[in-house]
Amino acid sequence: MFGFFPKLPTCSHSPLAAVMSLKKNLFFFVCQGTRDYNPKQMAIREKVFNTIISCFKRHGAETIDTPVFELKETLTGKYGEDSKLIYDLKDQGGELLSLRYDLTVPFARYLAMNKITNIKRYHIAKVYRRDNPAMTRGRYREFYQCDFDIAGQYDAMIPDAECLKIVHEILSELDLGDFRIKVNDRRILDGMFAVCGVPDDKFRTICSTVDKLDKMPWEDVKKEMVNEKGLSEEAADQIGEYVAVCVAGGMDLAERLLQDHKMSQSKQACAGLSDIKLLFSFLQLFQVTDKVVFDLSLARGLDYYTGIIYEAVLTQAGVAAVSNEAQNGANAEESVSVGSVAGGGRYDGLVGMFDPKGRKVPCVGVSIGIERIFSIMEQKAEASAEKVRTTEVQVMVASAQKNLLEERLRLVTELWNAGIKAEVMYKKNPKLLSQLQHCEESGIPLVAILGEQELKDGVVKLRVVATREEIDIARTDLTSEIRRRTSEA
Amino acid sequence: MFGFFPKLPTCSHSPLAAVMSLKKNLFFFVCQGTRDYNPKQMAIREKVFNTIISCFKRHGAETIDTPVFELKETLTGKYGEDSKLIYDLKDQGGELLSLRYDLTVPFARYLAMNKITNIKRYHIAKVYRRDNPAMTRGRYREFYQCDFDIAGQYDAMIPDAECLKIVHEILSELDLGDFRIKVNDRRILDGMFAVCGVPDDKFRTICSTVDKLDKMPWEDVKKEMVNEKGLSEEAADQIGEYVAVCVAGGMDLAERLLQDHKMSQSKQACAGLSDIKLLFSFLQLFQVTDKVVFDLSLARGLDYYTGIIYEAVLTQAGVAAVSNEAQNGANAEESVSVGSVAGGGRYDGLVGMFDPKGRKVPCVGVSIGIERIFSIMEQKAEASAEKVRTTEVQVMVASAQKNLLEERLRLVTELWNAGIKAEVMYKKNPKLLSQLQHCEESGIPLVAILGEQELKDGVVKLRVVATREEIDIARTDLTSEIRRRTSEA
Repeated sequence: MFGFFPKLPTCSHSPLAAVMSLKKNLFFFVCQGTRDYNPKQMAIREKVFNTIISCFKRHGAETIDTPVFELKETLTGKYGEDSKLIYDLKDQGGELLSLRYDLTVPFARYLAMNKITNIKRYHIAKVYRRDNPAMTRGRYREFYQCDFDIAGQYDAMIPDAECLKIVHEILSELDLGDFRIKVNDRRILDGMFAVCGVPDDKFRTICSTVDKLDKMPWEDVKKEMVNEKGLSEEAADQIGEYVAVCVAGGMDLAERLLQDHKMSQSKQACAGLSDIKLLFSFLQLFQVTDKVVFDLSLARGLDYYTGIIYEAVLTQAGVAAVSNEAQNGANAEESVSVGSVAGGGRYDGLVGMFDPKGRKVPCVGVSIGIERIFSIMEQKAEASAEKVRTTEVQVMVASAQKNLLEERLRLVTELWNAGIKAEVMYKKNPKLLSQLQHCEESGIPLVAILGEQELKDGVVKLRVVATREEIDIARTDLTSEIRRRTSEA
Repeated sequence: MFGFFPKLPTCSHSPLAAVMSLKKNLFFFVCQGTRDYNPKQMAIREKVFNTIISCFKRHGAETIDTPVFELKETLTGKYGEDSKLIYDLKDQGGELLSLRYDLTVPFARYLAMNKITNIKRYHIAKVYRRDNPAMTRGRYREFYQCDFDIAGQYDAMIPDAECLKIVHEILSELDLGDFRIKVNDRRILDGMFAVCGVPDDKFRTICSTVDKLDKMPWEDVKKEMVNEKGLSEEAADQIGEYVAVCVAGGMDLAERLLQDHKMSQSKQACAGLSDIKLLFSFLQLFQVTDKVVFDLSLARGLDYYTGIIYEAVLTQAGVAAVSNEAQNGANAEESVSVGSVAGGGRYDGLVGMFDPKGRKVPCVGVSIGIERIFSIMEQKAEASAEKVRTTEVQVMVASAQKNLLEERLRLVTELWNAGIKAEVMYKKNPKLLSQLQHCEESGIPLVAILGEQELKDGVVKLRVVATREEIDIARTDLTSEIRRRTSEA
């Protein structure tokens, strides 16, 4: 029964259970909500990362990395109602550790710990959430975040506007279809809550409920506010007037709300509204106002935001393709919602939470929702006729005759040493056909064929896989010929 | 007292403890044995990765990725005595999970799960071990592995030899000083154990002890075999004759051992020795025999190896530099040992452990010990006069006069949209000096200076930071001029 377990498991988990699960569906080989990336997915992932990293570098960002686990207390009290989704490590002696939930809190911890007061950095790494996976829509328990943040005491709204410019550039370059970037400000939300009669201690929890407006109709949001969160009916209705009515606009909406007799009573709201106006003036200079809207219903769930907040959503085509993949009824509701692919905001208080003296470092940043983007790109690749190459091999060293293993190894060594990407079959006497087939399958453009005659003549037969053209090349010219032909391609 | 904790922690860990630890040494901000990478370290890391990935790609490898945690049972029974170093996740409902200990077991699980019978892949990712950290020597609890593996049924020793070729290429290109690659074979070790009278069920544990020969003198190794592992004194002495006497050689040593009256009684040992000879013949063709030695004392601790095993060590200069950094007496012993920077071997049985029918996929691979390499490269960078740039910014958009924020933003937008890496200060009226200082500090080679006169004339003053040379460039020619000047650099 334990035939395929040469060594019995030594840990507490029962060996029987281990063997049993091997007999179950293969799905149980990986943890729920996680996935492997195969070479084709990795090739796509690499392309997406390159686009994003180029953009971050174009804007002058450095990069840092932090450990995958943090001290549990570092994450405590930073995520509001989402804290229950944090993965903890088992207490095996030593410190209590949790897997990072995002890259923002570790970044703030890093700044405080190293007393850094200004930096522009990006960080691309995996984060972990014990959420309900919806893998067909690109929602996983382990997933990448691509964050760009600007920390430092600067003049209002300039770094904030650059973050939106970056989102605009990345989503345009990735060519995912039309998108919109919604913008709001925590101070406007808080001011609105205040003038609508929401008690101070309910601001954050009501904010979390407003955040659900993109997934739930107003009636359900209101119900949650009143029934679950204990808000008065009148306060809820007043919020409704703002978030369900004056939803989307630009500078004009900000201007209108500044004139609003109730809103204008809140200093906070006025400060936020003035900054929205300033923001839009910078966005005009950055040439990105075509996609940005001021949306009073945007809330975002995380606790740490203090000023401007934003979220980018795909508004059509690309998203539909992903949603259609939803495989069962439970996902039906999700398939109508549009996809959020980036989000962020200003968090001026977070770094101070890690500083013994509470010294603040103002920060603003954006996180690209890369997993959903991968899903879309993978489906695009699937739909396209063009084959995704998973290696960059330029040439295959082959032979048509037997007993030339040594000669093949000698030639491939010459090529490797000259920096050429080359492969050779790991067989003493491979068939020419199988060598050529391998080239076809993996898109290798050239074959360098060795035979007794070629060796005698000091040449190599170079075959172009696509055209089947074959030419004899002097051995001494081979690397430059390969380079010439593959740089053209 | 909780002034810098705006929200009280909601988890089980006490808020008092959280606050207290903030008052302790800042070291306690990150988990023991882990570290952040700052931008300079990241720039070095990127350089090292590029060298390694180029080599893997040159040899035609694809890449995959797997989740950071695996089902606990996947890791169970694969690592022998090292299993105690596995990090488990807390049971929060759902599956029992562990952090990956290496990339080899997840790779084998991936092959079995996807029924892949041949692939050449690399995988660069972090792994986790609850080991005693020795961070000055590049030993961490969270660290990168860079693995290259060849899976498939091929002719003997060809893929194995390519793995050694790859180690040779990478260590040469990274220019870390002289190195040596030790080679042995599990079958030779097992054969030797058998003829020396080691009971079958003690092979693996004795193997683990032999593995310590590079850190402990033979007397201590023998003591552990006899006193802790219960091996007979005679058996231990016979092992000693082999591992402490016939240590290093090449094909000749393999030949000598094939003639050895005791060794030649073991079929296993003879098979291993013949393969070592074959391996060396391929290594000659690959032109790497200058660094490879057949070393009978090399054992390697992991359970899953079945054939050839190898390990690369730095033999001098570079390592000494790292060891000297050892900061306390406890590290004194370590500072004499040379550094292992790569290791691997053949593991033909591992994939079969994950296949319900036990189908085997022969594999051989190598793992580059990248953390130690980072340490060495960081110290080299520290010692060198050349400054490590952490961004790639080509030009800073600046102004000498007030009230030109809008013009600066307009110009930097032009540059970004043209693909130029550009920065602008996030201030309404920054001083020219502070703009120039930022360029000096971060190595930005050019400054595009705007003033009233330049705007009127439709030009930009382009300043070369290094020479302080300034020239007026027509606004329409600016991007091509920047490109020309920075591609030279």
